[in-house]
Amino acid sequence: MKPKKNLKIEIMAIGSELLTPYFQDTNSLFLTERLNDLGMEVSYKTIVGDDWDDLALSIKQALSRTDVIIAIGGLGPTQDDRTREAFATVLERKLIFNKELLQKIEGRFKHRGLSMPAVNKKQSYVIDGAEILENRNGTAPGLWLDTGSNKIILLPGPPHELKPMFDESACPHLQEFKTDYTARKVLKITGLTESKIDTLILDLYPDSPYLRMTILSHPGQIEIHLSSHSKKSQEQADKRVQKLETNILERLKENVFSASGEELEEVVGNLLRLNKRTLAVAESCTGGLLGHRLTNVPGSSDYFLLGVVAYSNKAKINALGVSPSLIEKYGAVSSQVAEAMAQGIREKARSNLSLAVTGIAGPTGGTPEKPVGLVYIALAWDKGSKLKKNLFLGNRDKIKYQSSQKALDMVRRHLAKNKKKKRALK
Amino acid sequence: MKPKKNLKIEIMAIGSELLTPYFQDTNSLFLTERLNDLGMEVSYKTIVGDDWDDLALSIKQALSRTDVIIAIGGLGPTQDDRTREAFATVLERKLIFNKELLQKIEGRFKHRGLSMPAVNKKQSYVIDGAEILENRNGTAPGLWLDTGSNKIILLPGPPHELKPMFDESACPHLQEFKTDYTARKVLKITGLTESKIDTLILDLYPDSPYLRMTILSHPGQIEIHLSSHSKKSQEQADKRVQKLETNILERLKENVFSASGEELEEVVGNLLRLNKRTLAVAESCTGGLLGHRLTNVPGSSDYFLLGVVAYSNKAKINALGVSPSLIEKYGAVSSQVAEAMAQGIREKARSNLSLAVTGIAGPTGGTPEKPVGLVYIALAWDKGSKLKKNLFLGNRDKIKYQSSQKALDMVRRHLAKNKKKKRALK
Repeated sequence: MKPKKNLKIEIMAIGSELLTPYFQDTNSLFLTERLNDLGMEVSYKTIVGDDWDDLALSIKQALSRTDVIIAIGGLGPTQDDRTREAFATVLERKLIFNKELLQKIEGRFKHRGLSMPAVNKKQSYVIDGAEILENRNGTAPGLWLDTGSNKIILLPGPPHELKPMFDESACPHLQEFKTDYTARKVLKITGLTESKIDTLILDLYPDSPYLRMTILSHPGQIEIHLSSHSKKSQEQADKRVQKLETNILERLKENVFSASGEELEEVVGNLLRLNKRTLAVAESCTGGLLGHRLTNVPGSSDYFLLGVVAYSNKAKINALGVSPSLIEKYGAVSSQVAEAMAQGIREKARSNLSLAVTGIAGPTGGTPEKPVGLVYIALAWDKGSKLKKNLFLGNRDKIKYQSSQKALDMVRRHLAKNKKKKRALK
Repeated sequence: MKPKKNLKIEIMAIGSELLTPYFQDTNSLFLTERLNDLGMEVSYKTIVGDDWDDLALSIKQALSRTDVIIAIGGLGPTQDDRTREAFATVLERKLIFNKELLQKIEGRFKHRGLSMPAVNKKQSYVIDGAEILENRNGTAPGLWLDTGSNKIILLPGPPHELKPMFDESACPHLQEFKTDYTARKVLKITGLTESKIDTLILDLYPDSPYLRMTILSHPGQIEIHLSSHSKKSQEQADKRVQKLETNILERLKENVFSASGEELEEVVGNLLRLNKRTLAVAESCTGGLLGHRLTNVPGSSDYFLLGVVAYSNKAKINALGVSPSLIEKYGAVSSQVAEAMAQGIREKARSNLSLAVTGIAGPTGGTPEKPVGLVYIALAWDKGSKLKKNLFLGNRDKIKYQSSQKALDMVRRHLAKNKKKKRALK
């Protein structure tokens, strides 16, 4: 690949609904990812409505400041859909009727037993000199146009139409302007705070234009996004990202639970299946979230046997066999009750492992001794048990989520340790 | 209020992270809502990075095409934060050191027992002629500047800093340009499809520049957003929206579950509390989501007694008392098993009401007779029971969500009907 000039790119999302408080352009995130894979960066994103003057001015300014414009939306059949017309007007090019295209659009309707509404005829007009990008999932065709000074891509708004069209028809046009080979990796981490991670890997922050590291922080989970470029070869790009990944893994060790995209519940599910272990859960403050996350994974019935949401004391006593005196003595939110809940659900479900969560999710119910965010989590197995006392910050949602994350992570670390022990014994 | 010219507004989000696939500007949605409340519309949204030339050009073009620019971000202490400098340069105005501001920023650090890093001094420079907007939650001050031809508002990026600053300090400046009184309302609906709703209210679509109706469709829930304007008075704006609301309610009746923002689980919770009824749930394919949603509502322990996630046949038999022969004869996904699960959990929890959900969430496990998306939901109470057979579309997530929504809605309709009966008896 010869070194080439980097193209200046603008993504323009068109539609008055995108200027209300209710809708947001998300297509540009997908497009940016794809462009980054080609070694290309986005310089501007513009959102503009259906107003003719605003739209025409946006197009004019975009043409003057960038090499590539990717415009999204406004290709539909209604009066509000003016993207084709606005580009044609600003570029001073004609819209030319395309009979073949009309037949294709009519065919789509016929296929569904419908006749094409007259308004859709509009969609069979093509800007003079443009190439049609086929739409497998809708009637609005896309367009590719190279004016010499600008490359213009028009894409439909619905993501399920835009995504395949971009990958199949628009991307090949951009491919020839690809300047760099690229590679990417996402590391997911739990059990360390963002500032702790920062301290551990501060000196690894790449001081190279070919490498980028971005840290995204969520409650209970941190992600490190790595990306690399190479002018030379894919191999070099891969090696660059791999080297950085290896260095980070050495520092963060088992706190990294995924380097290939899996969610924590998938990692835990795989470990349970691999180790031929089953799990049951007793939930108080998480209220079902733990079961919900475990069962988000297809095939989880292989290892997830039973969940009990025991919100009240009565439910803890009747459904989990927790002794009333224990609750009276230590309170429902206590290490003792957490452990009794874990033992109770394990016996009831006859599972290998069990988890129990009891805490105060708020916003009310906290006391100076037992504040909102105090959560006890117990893990029990055939030969023992483990307990964690946590103090989570945030609102009810966040406390519930962090509790479920911590609970799943306790299973993960327990099974990973088991694996190591077995290896050591061999 | 005298009639005034409508201001042309652009929101500009500044920061290179907003040009990656990982971050999205959400502040503009909040700002748009607030501007709409003032009777103002947004014409352009621009997203630009830290590159000096790109940023300066964006500012220049925004100044030429709009009356008001609200710029977000780039007010921090680091080298990448160039919003103040870029606006000052394009406007050909000086940045003037403000001693008082420096003392305030130093004070923030001192308060936390820290000394101010030298880089933060940068934040105490103010564009000549601008007014400082106080930041209660961070060090970056905002700015308000009226150049005669443009009104410029600079706000910090973090939402918890931006929101109070806009409401307390920026909004009062815009208030005097308020052209209209406005009112808003959101109706939430479940149990009708979007096309059914469209048919029912098609002729109610307002043919007035003073009223707007937007339908947002989610799986299992449709929202109708109503907004109105009046040049005359708040009362007129309120009346306009109320009239439209009344007309819609007449058509959609009890399918509207909320007209004041509550989620379905809150509405159900309030009805349970009001009717002094308790609830228990037995979940198979929803896997805990139903319990999770019920317990997202603070105080839900008042009425939510017990949840059991019985994913396997064994769990259905052991934990819910479903007879093995029933499962063998009809299958775990059947109306008979759903009803047995509902009876089982009701007896176990001694609750007034109970829900049971069993179905095939996919992606695998479907057959021609029992396809993915087939979900049976049973509601049981002291004097009877009710069963719904559903065929939901979408992926695993969406099928789980729609199942939980339908189940909650069955409780809502049951209790609402009860209420009506009681009224009739009086």
